[in-house]
Amino acid sequence: MPNEFDFIDWIRAQQKHNARVRIGIGDDLAALNWAKDELLLVGVDQVLDGVHFDSTVHLPRAIGQKAMNRNLSDCAAMACLPAAATVTFALPKGIGEDYAKELFLGIMEAGEKFDCTIVGGDTASWPGKLAITVSILGRSAGITPVGRAGAKPGDAIYVTGPLGGSILGRHMTFEPRVQLARELAANFQLHAMMDLSDGLGRDLRHICRASGVGATLRIQEIPVHPDAIQLAKNDPVVRAITDGEDYELLIVSPDDLPAPCVQIGSIESRAGLTLETKDADVTFDPSELGGWEHQL
Amino acid sequence: MPNEFDFIDWIRAQQKHNARVRIGIGDDLAALNWAKDELLLVGVDQVLDGVHFDSTVHLPRAIGQKAMNRNLSDCAAMACLPAAATVTFALPKGIGEDYAKELFLGIMEAGEKFDCTIVGGDTASWPGKLAITVSILGRSAGITPVGRAGAKPGDAIYVTGPLGGSILGRHMTFEPRVQLARELAANFQLHAMMDLSDGLGRDLRHICRASGVGATLRIQEIPVHPDAIQLAKNDPVVRAITDGEDYELLIVSPDDLPAPCVQIGSIESRAGLTLETKDADVTFDPSELGGWEHQL
Repeated sequence: MPNEFDFIDWIRAQQKHNARVRIGIGDDLAALNWAKDELLLVGVDQVLDGVHFDSTVHLPRAIGQKAMNRNLSDCAAMACLPAAATVTFALPKGIGEDYAKELFLGIMEAGEKFDCTIVGGDTASWPGKLAITVSILGRSAGITPVGRAGAKPGDAIYVTGPLGGSILGRHMTFEPRVQLARELAANFQLHAMMDLSDGLGRDLRHICRASGVGATLRIQEIPVHPDAIQLAKNDPVVRAITDGEDYELLIVSPDDLPAPCVQIGSIESRAGLTLETKDADVTFDPSELGGWEHQL
Repeated sequence: MPNEFDFIDWIRAQQKHNARVRIGIGDDLAALNWAKDELLLVGVDQVLDGVHFDSTVHLPRAIGQKAMNRNLSDCAAMACLPAAATVTFALPKGIGEDYAKELFLGIMEAGEKFDCTIVGGDTASWPGKLAITVSILGRSAGITPVGRAGAKPGDAIYVTGPLGGSILGRHMTFEPRVQLARELAANFQLHAMMDLSDGLGRDLRHICRASGVGATLRIQEIPVHPDAIQLAKNDPVVRAITDGEDYELLIVSPDDLPAPCVQIGSIESRAGLTLETKDADVTFDPSELGGWEHQL
């Protein structure tokens, strides 16, 4: 980086008018108007070289898009609307201004699709690897946020698309399910929802623990992505259950949800996870099935 | 790190009740109630090993404190009250659970002094160096935020304490000037304010550019910290002007501000920065004076 202040001047020049933003990029903090009947949702996700992307393989524009899209996917998971975001860049020394701009443009473009404006940030070059953190603000906008703790015995479990094998590329290119989540939450009772980042087994366990329930998955109903089949021809459903970064929604509802939602199981009163196969019901521990805990 | 989920369970157990927090740590996003007459302020700062701290020298508790205090200092700079924060940890592989807990406790304790609750975060271990990002939410709480763009010719320039040489230790141990900023903003006209992180010369230039004005600094009035004298016996005031990370406030006001504010110069209508010495007035460029741009 020639000079971090030049980069910040350039970032500031990318700002567009947004009625919510009273003070934008370039002060100590940004100042936003917040509508009086809206809950404020807030969260953060980082993307790290060698963990969430590989800077020797992925283009900076795509890395930036992923950094923002992970956060937009968290908004989908809560059924809120993205509103604004802040960004930090820890840039390896000598990375070059054009590369840094591509990172920012990826973040900005991914946000703009969802009316999510960049309102602040922090940039430094360092003797380390590339790390980007995006922190996001969402607004409830008329819909009560859907958490993880409301699953009830008898509820059905749904996912919004085929799972597994995202490491072949989808973990960089997924589309956050913001609109779908809003439509479902506006029209159906959603008792619990999250986005699939740690893998179906682990993420379902998060919901079960938060809700004090158990669950049964019907193995033949789980939609398996062609990428999972390519990676594991003999047992691709294991990848569908254990692979991370699908960024589809995992939903628990007492209602019949329409496509693209696919029902894959049900919530049980007894604790623990059960896999229902053609031949038998087996309890399973997502940790023991192995799988992918934030490793490229 | 043995397992990032254990660390997150432990972090969740540290949460205390806070009336503003509807959904806390452990969901995809946190949900906060936001008072209808309050502006929402938001910003972010990162601390990076080898730039903002040195993990071979500084203890993890102190590193965590600095990560939070940099953000609290941004709240001071806007005269807002800290409300909530999110945190990301990029942890070097094998760093150990106790070390990670000390980082978090440093962040949490620094926040608690100012009623600033941790409401979310993201943790990953990686083949890189330690990086921490804190994103902060502030609330206007009855005081209009003080930006950088309101300085007017004839205004006086103040700083809230002696400057320079923070590299000897104060850059890790400073106290954010939140209360002082609130008291000053409640009782005086503050036309511009920021916290000194890049060094007096550079930061004053930020205010001048944002406000479309120039400034004169009276070199004999600039309070020089003993640390600057220790580092540069012959010309310590140059360090007071160029060293970074003082985290005192730089304030522009038409009023007479009380101690600890020290008047060091005045805003001019003509662009550029001038240093008034015993013998002559000299224009200066903070970039050419050298100084410390985020480098340990």
